[in-house]
Amino acid sequence: MTAKVNRQWRLAARPVGLIKESDFKLTEQPVPEPGEGEVLVRNLYLSLDPTNRGWCERDTYMPAVKIGDVMRGGTIGVVEQSRNPRFQEGAVVQGLLGWQDYAISDGTGLTALPHNESIPLTAYLGLFGHIGLSAYFGLLDIGKPKAGETLVVSAAAGAVGSLVGQIGKIKGCRVVGIAGGEEKGRWITGELGFDAAIDYKAEPVLDGLKKHCPDGVDVYFENVGGKILDAVLSVINIKARVVLCGLISQYNATEPQPGPYNFGNILIRRARVEGFIVTDYMNRAQEAIADLAKWLAEGKIKYRIDVVEGIEQAPLALNKLFDGSNKGKLIVKF
Amino acid sequence: MTAKVNRQWRLAARPVGLIKESDFKLTEQPVPEPGEGEVLVRNLYLSLDPTNRGWCERDTYMPAVKIGDVMRGGTIGVVEQSRNPRFQEGAVVQGLLGWQDYAISDGTGLTALPHNESIPLTAYLGLFGHIGLSAYFGLLDIGKPKAGETLVVSAAAGAVGSLVGQIGKIKGCRVVGIAGGEEKGRWITGELGFDAAIDYKAEPVLDGLKKHCPDGVDVYFENVGGKILDAVLSVINIKARVVLCGLISQYNATEPQPGPYNFGNILIRRARVEGFIVTDYMNRAQEAIADLAKWLAEGKIKYRIDVVEGIEQAPLALNKLFDGSNKGKLIVKF
Repeated sequence: MTAKVNRQWRLAARPVGLIKESDFKLTEQPVPEPGEGEVLVRNLYLSLDPTNRGWCERDTYMPAVKIGDVMRGGTIGVVEQSRNPRFQEGAVVQGLLGWQDYAISDGTGLTALPHNESIPLTAYLGLFGHIGLSAYFGLLDIGKPKAGETLVVSAAAGAVGSLVGQIGKIKGCRVVGIAGGEEKGRWITGELGFDAAIDYKAEPVLDGLKKHCPDGVDVYFENVGGKILDAVLSVINIKARVVLCGLISQYNATEPQPGPYNFGNILIRRARVEGFIVTDYMNRAQEAIADLAKWLAEGKIKYRIDVVEGIEQAPLALNKLFDGSNKGKLIVKF
Repeated sequence: MTAKVNRQWRLAARPVGLIKESDFKLTEQPVPEPGEGEVLVRNLYLSLDPTNRGWCERDTYMPAVKIGDVMRGGTIGVVEQSRNPRFQEGAVVQGLLGWQDYAISDGTGLTALPHNESIPLTAYLGLFGHIGLSAYFGLLDIGKPKAGETLVVSAAAGAVGSLVGQIGKIKGCRVVGIAGGEEKGRWITGELGFDAAIDYKAEPVLDGLKKHCPDGVDVYFENVGGKILDAVLSVINIKARVVLCGLISQYNATEPQPGPYNFGNILIRRARVEGFIVTDYMNRAQEAIADLAKWLAEGKIKYRIDVVEGIEQAPLALNKLFDGSNKGKLIVKF
């Protein structure tokens, strides 16, 4: 790596609707020197996630990124210089190091990744990272599916949704995925083993639910919100659990969005709707990783990644998470 | 009692908005004779509850009352004739015996009330009935308040809400009630010991919440829905619990009502929203009644009833539950 400059994507404006190129500004700076206790990391991979859209606009479970600041983002990188005894030069690390070629870190929130030839680094941004943990803890800890129950998952061909459905199958559920387009439906019912797919672009979701969930819905893993949530709420069973992982249909909204019109069904069906944020589960990561690694080795879990080449693509690539065009975990390769 | 006729309120039309007199029809029939295994009950008291409005219009957790049928309602009455060995003549019983002077029952769902001079019969339609159980199990089983937490309750001067707040105080919570009008606020903060009242008629609920819940809201006991729910969702703490007991702001709506605009906060705050129906807890009634009776004897719980005289008043009296005019548990005395 011979770059002498550090390219940084800085937030230039609060986006309205989908990201525009003018919402970010690519600046160049000299590569910084680490101070005492710090490391210099060269980023290799950047994770793009729906939650990034919220970070650009408003305080959520984290404060909004400030205008002019380097965009927040989860990355994997290699330690190029170290003045921190916890991290050796050459170590591969993971952290919130931002949309930039190089980052300085004092080690806070930085994790050294284990050396394991059989695990590609990108897996730490997916199956063994926040994606796998979201699917695992969201489904098992919040959704508490029981064998024989019907599990519905939205954005079912997405990074999290595709794992949720496969874990649901491992746990003995009937699994129905909602995803847009025939190709996604074929993938989740074919390679991933879902029992059925509902193509929201081809038929009303409620029709699909009535067809494929003859016994109603016991667990709904929600990534989308809006009309899809409304449709599912109309067919939930008594004591159903709705796991709120994401509401991507709303992240680009330019005006306040109503909650589900079938909200009253939560009461009538004595259902539970519960939100979670994966960062709350980081101290239990090893639990999830142990199971996920075992299932991966047994061939019970498959995943795919969608790699975008070049950090210059990052801002507009984020929109792929909202227009239905990405297939698998979205990652930018530096 | 010399009545030879049985007056019966029959549902005449599905109500649109608030109840109109023409939605019901008062018919007269001869008092029926009980068959083998049946009892004839003369009703003494009828409970009016917000859920009755739903029964008139649509299937909920129970099927809608059919047009032409006697209106469903919880009553207390006295057994006038018995051909069922479980019930003696003169016994006081409780059941869903409907809006009528006399009812025939085969004993299904009928409970003989204990003789206890110190407990007024009306208490079985309130504190020791579905009202007390809703407050007790809804708050303790679903809300799980911890000492030191902030509990907010809407319709706080209502039958359920007023008990919820008092149980919250017994459990060591800071309790803030939302109720309309100065008199209700004085009652809940004075006689009932709530820490604060928010008069939604006098100030925006959000302003009141910010003033009276400096540490945010940990448990919200919801009876109302709509704008009040939205205001509370905007100030819930991480891991807050929202107990859905009722959504009375919506029961008279004539078009679909949006869910809360702040629905996304359930995710961001990792909150839990859970509905319940008191009928699910009937097998645990004695747990609740034992505690409630103890607290009543200790002077820690107070309640009031709002008695309407004469069954002919029943249909329009139901509207009192939605226009804010009732004070305490609403009961019709035959």
